Amino acid sequence: MENLSRRSMIGMLGALGAMGTAAAIPLAAAPPARADARPGGIPFFGPHQAGIAEPPQAHLQFAALRVDVENVAALRALLGEWTAAAESMTRGRPVGPAIPAPEVVPTDTGEALDLPAAALSVTFGFGPTLFTDAAGRDRFGIAHRQPRAFGALPPFRGDALDPRRIGGDLCVQACADDQQIAMHAVRNLLRIAGDRVQPMWSQAGFNRAAALAPVRTTPRNLFGFRDGTNNIDPRDADAMSRFVWAQPGDGSDWLIGGSMLAVRRIRMLTQPWDGESLEEQEATFGRHKADGAPLSGGSERTAPDFGRAGRDGKPLIPADSHMALAHPSANAGARILRRAFNYADPDMADGTPDVGLFFMSYQRSLVEQYIPMQRRLAASDRLNEYIQHTGSASFVIPPGVRGPGDYIGSTLLG
Amino acid sequence: MENLSRRSMIGMLGALGAMGTAAAIPLAAAPPARADARPGGIPFFGPHQAGIAEPPQAHLQFAALRVDVENVAALRALLGEWTAAAESMTRGRPVGPAIPAPEVVPTDTGEALDLPAAALSVTFGFGPTLFTDAAGRDRFGIAHRQPRAFGALPPFRGDALDPRRIGGDLCVQACADDQQIAMHAVRNLLRIAGDRVQPMWSQAGFNRAAALAPVRTTPRNLFGFRDGTNNIDPRDADAMSRFVWAQPGDGSDWLIGGSMLAVRRIRMLTQPWDGESLEEQEATFGRHKADGAPLSGGSERTAPDFGRAGRDGKPLIPADSHMALAHPSANAGARILRRAFNYADPDMADGTPDVGLFFMSYQRSLVEQYIPMQRRLAASDRLNEYIQHTGSASFVIPPGVRGPGDYIGSTLLG
Repeated sequence: MENLSRRSMIGMLGALGAMGTAAAIPLAAAPPARADARPGGIPFFGPHQAGIAEPPQAHLQFAALRVDVENVAALRALLGEWTAAAESMTRGRPVGPAIPAPEVVPTDTGEALDLPAAALSVTFGFGPTLFTDAAGRDRFGIAHRQPRAFGALPPFRGDALDPRRIGGDLCVQACADDQQIAMHAVRNLLRIAGDRVQPMWSQAGFNRAAALAPVRTTPRNLFGFRDGTNNIDPRDADAMSRFVWAQPGDGSDWLIGGSMLAVRRIRMLTQPWDGESLEEQEATFGRHKADGAPLSGGSERTAPDFGRAGRDGKPLIPADSHMALAHPSANAGARILRRAFNYADPDMADGTPDVGLFFMSYQRSLVEQYIPMQRRLAASDRLNEYIQHTGSASFVIPPGVRGPGDYIGSTLLG
Repeated sequence: MENLSRRSMIGMLGALGAMGTAAAIPLAAAPPARADARPGGIPFFGPHQAGIAEPPQAHLQFAALRVDVENVAALRALLGEWTAAAESMTRGRPVGPAIPAPEVVPTDTGEALDLPAAALSVTFGFGPTLFTDAAGRDRFGIAHRQPRAFGALPPFRGDALDPRRIGGDLCVQACADDQQIAMHAVRNLLRIAGDRVQPMWSQAGFNRAAALAPVRTTPRNLFGFRDGTNNIDPRDADAMSRFVWAQPGDGSDWLIGGSMLAVRRIRMLTQPWDGESLEEQEATFGRHKADGAPLSGGSERTAPDFGRAGRDGKPLIPADSHMALAHPSANAGARILRRAFNYADPDMADGTPDVGLFFMSYQRSLVEQYIPMQRRLAASDRLNEYIQHTGSASFVIPPGVRGPGDYIGSTLLG
């Protein structure tokens, strides 16, 4: 399917609506521990892929790729090689000999030698065009296995998409607490693939440095606000099952333990934003800038009271504020696992900054969770005046690799 | 002067040549401690600007700016405001109220609130065009105070300069162990300047993350080689005086305690490089890839033996290797303080990676130290096949700010 149709959404809404009513999961009192609390690295093998439930590392290197192989055996071979390489790198090892015999071309490019894993995770995803390509071809015989709640994201109101930053047959999300390590991972996977894939677009991003681990506040976005306070705590296994990991009965048994990824590159227009008063900035987010508390009062983790009015009789948290529209109460209880990174690319040709948020969220269903929420935000979010969505993609995230001999995507392609 | 002429070089060569013969400073046994060993931040005030003698932090944000003020009083005012703001940020403080009264526009943009200084340093430099602009004007009455060993870099053989990445009236080098903190510093300095300056070009760069402080090896460049082994150890006060800090008698008393900065954006062509054998890669650098030892033997910090030949009678370290040509013995004893960062920008329009080294070196004399060394490298370096110099600039670095009430550049403009 080209875009997810309204029709395809209907089937699951009932089921998720029922879940939504039970979705008032108590929030943890403190944000999850940072990735650097794992000096031994993040295990690659497991029921879920790494790089989803772990708190975001300090750096992201993301790549969307076109697949140029023409049959499922060749695709399996590529994914098998990538699985071995990724597993090796997440143990802090090269992808193959970095120091071979003198006359031999090194397999690993070497820039991460001497370094530990630095919490590297490598996460792979399959785009809608892997199931059915733009020409309508079912190259790999998997079109009938595309999950019903997954497809290309529809157009959203206000989209300012750069055609060079859309979609992808495959994606790789490499995250680590060191930029060179994240970059090394993607570089070496591309090198292994050779002409079997072609990079379509890529994005580097960052989060608070791991060296600042003693700081436990919610990180701030480039508008200076704490961002992600209401996110799902990945230690909340119940919420992860309800909202993030594909379950038996969702319709695609091969995906059980996997997830769906929504990607939006959101440029933040710092110049108009920086000229606004504190009041306008806070009304836009629905939170206080100083400490992230909802405008209805309390501290950062106090539940917002959308009914509470100020002296003028208007709600203290504007109904069109970003928090009000993104809150589960405005989304039939639906929640997502947000795993975003800030980005700062070179300035635009006109000299204005090209900085913002590389938004990624993981959810069990794009159709029931991300898409309706983003429709609501696109229609009414007061923040829209200060942002532009310039990139968009979606990927279905296969479950984790069970151990040596297994490979990424085996439940779909095996 | 537009470019440094051969004539202007003659005066100082004698003096520096004499120094060169005494330049065999013993190398420290281990690289200097990392910046993160300073949790309290790097002091802003002092005889030298910060961000030079400190080991490179994990992140760089560099900006080259055009100055649009027209008289020295306005330039002084700008530099005074910047001094106060930089000093505040290097203590982990905002540049002014981030949380003002509701109706007021925040002074600080806020994205570094909650965070410590993270070893932030902010270093300012003056380009040749601040002394005499492109139209030949002496806008600030300082043309006669331009140091004789300083000017625009001359063209070098093989230059592939992007006209949008050359020069600058002023530069700001912000370095920190967190990317958001480095970026915040430059963003807020630009905001303070408003229309008094215009960004010409900028560059983000990175080094090993501070979280990896237990790793003490020399960092690797994006070709996988340890890079900078022979660099001046900034703890070597004698070498810093001889090669980095301007001294009485150099000809510009206002510059004493300052330095000169050479900037070269060096794109590294990873695709041809990654296809070369280990032997060719090692011959290009003159070192072993595994441990950085010179090809003449020993370990990383063993002095190279350029006379030592292999079984075929040829020198083990090729005469055209990068190390051989950059070594003090090939440069009349001249040394520089290299303070480079790797960079990874978005891919080129043709899809090839735009990654490499943002080379910066500090030296007492561009004319006697950097320029002849770079001429030699440009003429013969075996590495030239794999790199492209795409950006170039030079800045004279005024001494440090002595304390409250002083401002950056006061000895030149005060």
